[in-house]
Amino acid sequence: MASQATFRAAVAGASGYAGGEVLRLLLAHPAIEIGALTGGSNAGATLGELQPHLWPLADRVLEPTTPETLAGHDVVFLGLPHGQSAAVAEQLGPDVLVVDCGADFRLHSAEDWENFYGSPHAGTWPYGLPELPGGRKALEGSKRIAVPGCYPTSVSLALFPAYAAGIAEPEAVVVAASGTSGAGKAPKPHLLGSEVMGSMSPYGVGGVHRHTPEMTQNLSAVAGERVAVSFTPTLAPMSRGILATCNVKAKPGVTAAQVRAAYAEALDGEPFVHLLPEGQWPATSSVQGSNNALIQVAFDENVGRIIAIAAIDNLVKGTAGGAVQSMNIALGLPEELGLPQTGVAP
Amino acid sequence: MASQATFRAAVAGASGYAGGEVLRLLLAHPAIEIGALTGGSNAGATLGELQPHLWPLADRVLEPTTPETLAGHDVVFLGLPHGQSAAVAEQLGPDVLVVDCGADFRLHSAEDWENFYGSPHAGTWPYGLPELPGGRKALEGSKRIAVPGCYPTSVSLALFPAYAAGIAEPEAVVVAASGTSGAGKAPKPHLLGSEVMGSMSPYGVGGVHRHTPEMTQNLSAVAGERVAVSFTPTLAPMSRGILATCNVKAKPGVTAAQVRAAYAEALDGEPFVHLLPEGQWPATSSVQGSNNALIQVAFDENVGRIIAIAAIDNLVKGTAGGAVQSMNIALGLPEELGLPQTGVAP
Amino acid sequence: MASQATFRAAVAGASGYAGGEVLRLLLAHPAIEIGALTGGSNAGATLGELQPHLWPLADRVLEPTTPETLAGHDVVFLGLPHGQSAAVAEQLGPDVLVVDCGADFRLHSAEDWENFYGSPHAGTWPYGLPELPGGRKALEGSKRIAVPGCYPTSVSLALFPAYAAGIAEPEAVVVAASGTSGAGKAPKPHLLGSEVMGSMSPYGVGGVHRHTPEMTQNLSAVAGERVAVSFTPTLAPMSRGILATCNVKAKPGVTAAQVRAAYAEALDGEPFVHLLPEGQWPATSSVQGSNNALIQVAFDENVGRIIAIAAIDNLVKGTAGGAVQSMNIALGLPEELGLPQTGVAP
Amino acid sequence: MASQATFRAAVAGASGYAGGEVLRLLLAHPAIEIGALTGGSNAGATLGELQPHLWPLADRVLEPTTPETLAGHDVVFLGLPHGQSAAVAEQLGPDVLVVDCGADFRLHSAEDWENFYGSPHAGTWPYGLPELPGGRKALEGSKRIAVPGCYPTSVSLALFPAYAAGIAEPEAVVVAASGTSGAGKAPKPHLLGSEVMGSMSPYGVGGVHRHTPEMTQNLSAVAGERVAVSFTPTLAPMSRGILATCNVKAKPGVTAAQVRAAYAEALDGEPFVHLLPEGQWPATSSVQGSNNALIQVAFDENVGRIIAIAAIDNLVKGTAGGAVQSMNIALGLPEELGLPQTGVAP
Repeated sequence: MASQATFRAAVAGASGYAGGEVLRLLLAHPAIEIGALTGGSNAGATLGELQPHLWPLADRVLEPTTPETLAGHDVVFLGLPHGQSAAVAEQLGPDVLVVDCGADFRLHSAEDWENFYGSPHAGTWPYGLPELPGGRKALEGSKRIAVPGCYPTSVSLALFPAYAAGIAEPEAVVVAASGTSGAGKAPKPHLLGSEVMGSMSPYGVGGVHRHTPEMTQNLSAVAGERVAVSFTPTLAPMSRGILATCNVKAKPGVTAAQVRAAYAEALDGEPFVHLLPEGQWPATSSVQGSNNALIQVAFDENVGRIIAIAAIDNLVKGTAGGAVQSMNIALGLPEELGLPQTGVAP
Repeated sequence: MASQATFRAAVAGASGYAGGEVLRLLLAHPAIEIGALTGGSNAGATLGELQPHLWPLADRVLEPTTPETLAGHDVVFLGLPHGQSAAVAEQLGPDVLVVDCGADFRLHSAEDWENFYGSPHAGTWPYGLPELPGGRKALEGSKRIAVPGCYPTSVSLALFPAYAAGIAEPEAVVVAASGTSGAGKAPKPHLLGSEVMGSMSPYGVGGVHRHTPEMTQNLSAVAGERVAVSFTPTLAPMSRGILATCNVKAKPGVTAAQVRAAYAEALDGEPFVHLLPEGQWPATSSVQGSNNALIQVAFDENVGRIIAIAAIDNLVKGTAGGAVQSMNIALGLPEELGLPQTGVAP
Repeated sequence: MASQATFRAAVAGASGYAGGEVLRLLLAHPAIEIGALTGGSNAGATLGELQPHLWPLADRVLEPTTPETLAGHDVVFLGLPHGQSAAVAEQLGPDVLVVDCGADFRLHSAEDWENFYGSPHAGTWPYGLPELPGGRKALEGSKRIAVPGCYPTSVSLALFPAYAAGIAEPEAVVVAASGTSGAGKAPKPHLLGSEVMGSMSPYGVGGVHRHTPEMTQNLSAVAGERVAVSFTPTLAPMSRGILATCNVKAKPGVTAAQVRAAYAEALDGEPFVHLLPEGQWPATSSVQGSNNALIQVAFDENVGRIIAIAAIDNLVKGTAGGAVQSMNIALGLPEELGLPQTGVAP
Repeated sequence: MASQATFRAAVAGASGYAGGEVLRLLLAHPAIEIGALTGGSNAGATLGELQPHLWPLADRVLEPTTPETLAGHDVVFLGLPHGQSAAVAEQLGPDVLVVDCGADFRLHSAEDWENFYGSPHAGTWPYGLPELPGGRKALEGSKRIAVPGCYPTSVSLALFPAYAAGIAEPEAVVVAASGTSGAGKAPKPHLLGSEVMGSMSPYGVGGVHRHTPEMTQNLSAVAGERVAVSFTPTLAPMSRGILATCNVKAKPGVTAAQVRAAYAEALDGEPFVHLLPEGQWPATSSVQGSNNALIQVAFDENVGRIIAIAAIDNLVKGTAGGAVQSMNIALGLPEELGLPQTGVAP
């Protein structure tokens, strides 16, 4: 280890769920030294009050999110509300690796951005999903990373093998269940424990969820044609995890063996995305706390449809783990460095 | 009340979740007197040991499930393993109302039954989903009722308005999340609290779940053509409830207004199935303990698809409540008699 | 039923958990007609938006909480923040039955009130725990009822038999686990589903919880001497329920048989408070949605201590059910009228 | 790392919760190479089928638990049913470090063992709770380790500072809430998700839980006099975690400052047991997946009682983490090596 270069990283938005999870991973990362931690309204508080599970950092005090506090780091992770990342990144300059866990730089289409986010488009950064075709190359040496949304991560990983192999029609029906941490730490009535425990509910139904154009963008790029996505997110009574059930019509003549071969080939050698043995289906508990995505696929011959299911931890592979994995690539470190491949279960 | 006729009801399988829920509802039913309670391996135990929430019946002792113990009742509810209902019903004779919470008599097609259940087909009884077109008529005066499966109840209620109005293509993609009580009370490792809490997982993927042909049967009858169903059930970390997300392609030219009108018309006047006001989506907690099904529908114009979502309590509208509602109709009682329309929330 | 007098009831604070549960019970109450529903910041909204589980009232609109909207009812239930009940009650006049689900009128001691609530003492109303010695008599014909706190209800029911029989030393150690609905519906970060699911945590430790003097008051009255209570509340990952574990030293010479006899005698004939058969312990799921309190007691001879445990639904017997039960007594109705004795489980 | 000696470890009982958690920790341990994995009825299955969260070991096949499969390791972890460890340990010989996660060798008193476990006493091994006075010394160089029970770990850590400082009377009242994984992976009806979700329930009440004599043993050794423990365990609706609320009478004249000082001193410098800042209380979520124990203490002057609360992860500090920590000491490795100090939250 001693021979490994060490990079100094700051985390802006350290009191939120994304920022906290970045810190949990960085604490175990052998090439990272944790620098400044900043917050908005929480500046001045200790991390121990806000993130009591991050014991080794309990005495650290949150600083305000300013250019001064974030200066002097090799890497800066941003866990900020939409629309704030561009200004911060500009102030940090072009030599600092800026990893944005927010949405600002994910979409190529300014029109999509404006339709779904209602503000001017800030631009597009290299996209932090290395497993997509060409994904790693786009991240190597980059100084800017747009971390994907948690739902698009799960759905893109579940479906890109089918589109890469050309075996699926360009219309996907997706229903995903997410743990409540995906909705963040700002208290709202419908996120109270009393409301979510023992209950499943949908939201953002009918193509209005902001992650929809991101899924379309990813899958269309792989398919070489526009892939329409009908996406329904649901809130599940658990803190973490996404289970994405993706259902697409197979192209005429496709066989079950071809489906399996497409997935085996596309995921072969991936360090964090694993096709399960036939007959075994993924549970979100199996990836809790880990950077893994577990994938399984079935071909329903009666209806000619492919059902691909992915389980990820929304805060790890879906956010902070994807961020660190992409950072590793951008910094020239081993891609798996410091990232957990075992889940915390039961 | 005193002027109301009273019927005497027995429950076979009173120690299970279905039987227990039938009893919970019958305890509040003004026209029912609870008679014999029977069990298999639990015969001899008190109900207080097995169903401690049914306090008024705590001292009742389970009898063995025999023709003798079930004789002398006006109504017999069966909560038995597959394949046992036919023999019991035959022994009870044609004048006793037999309400089968199991699957034995749900399917019309002997071939479907044999493919999915692997045993000889016992026959077909009037189907206990009054809301389907012609559903009430089939139950009036009947002495046999096949209570629908919990998933088919939710999916049929969510989609029949679209097929009745002729606005949907005959292929449905369904992803449903169920509470663990749907899997019954027999202890299995994957149903342990340690395994299910904090986790979502799929099962029976790829068209192999036994409720699939039942959905196809119901929706095809409404549509007047064969409706293919691609059904994926998932296990959610909650005891009760089903959230069924149903996604179908709209027929060409269909508009959002037509979709809403189809649902408003189909559900108008239904005592237990309610179309929510626009913008409000159903949560399973809202129907916990109640016989209601809450429905909402959206039309995604970008992809031309209708998304209909139903929330039910799998043990009430999905099993015991549907059973009692159908019993009411068969006995000539008011359909709503004794059935809760308020949920227990939060 | 037709011969039964009907009373018209208003609910102030109908958008909260207490108010919603009062409404759930009143909907099933044969002698109550539901009148005005009022709210604070939620006035103008429909109940369907705020309490979607109360389907039969979905179209009702919340009115502001004013003397005018609450006038003209026989009964007014108050689910208001501390300190507001006195003024409302005064405006309603002495002939209206006012049932206060808040704390304002529970304590006899002005000093205790001021120490724990930090405001002037409003007075003391008849206390709505009929099972305590003299409890029913105090409520008969009363026009004012102070509904007990949820924790004091559980602890008083678990321990009063020991103190009534004179078998316990006057110092009680109590640890109670509560579902999150006890903390109300106002969104706070520590009550988010993400925070409470999968986690147990204590709060108000060291004698500072406001329910402590209420427990002391109740148990001291029964014991005829001051009973010190060391009370630790904990937050459990569930929406409803209180499990109160109460541990007291037995007086010298007390035997296990005496302990059991004391409980059997004290709870004999109670409609809602039940001593379980020996060997069976209460679970909160068994009383979910019901007005029952399930009690069990053990005598640990090695340490000479009595362990009494109560399970209640904090929103029913702990709040709204206790309120309706006391209302029944005050109005001269049968005490059990309209109150559920079966739980919703699993 | 390269300079660090590497030890080869086998795990007997690798399909259970304790064995799985040992493996999760060993996978991250830089000085351990994982050798044989054995199971009972699960021999022949892959670990991927049984513990899908342990991805890096998914292809490993469970061998039968025999002397042959366990031979040739430096360390053997035993996660076996009670009564089997002695025979296995004997066959392994005196030079192998045997770490028993079971109860067989925890108790000094053969009488206690026989009373609580109903079988002959196998003996006593060095006890794996290094934080107790003299605890580390007893483990250094040892070839046998008895891993403490999960409840005794939490209670001993919460109360030993009070007894070490001589400020507490020798009678402790303890109520602890445990996640369901503490009850193991063998399926039983009362451990089904349907039964435990949304419910709290006690068990083993009245001094009959097997962990009671172990707590008495630990605390009595610290206090220098027999400490009576009245212990009530409860089952909480979560997979992991123990929250132990411990309540003891302070000796006459003890002050709040003395209480705090006793805890600060006793826990000073401990790597895994931490006294929280005043005003902050521990939640089990904060230690999920970590080897930390978080402690807080209050002195209730009104009743003269000390309330000490500990939160641990029952599978980590309460079982596998305690085992690895003790192994580190026995092998002469740094005590913290490979053990997580950050929790997985939310």
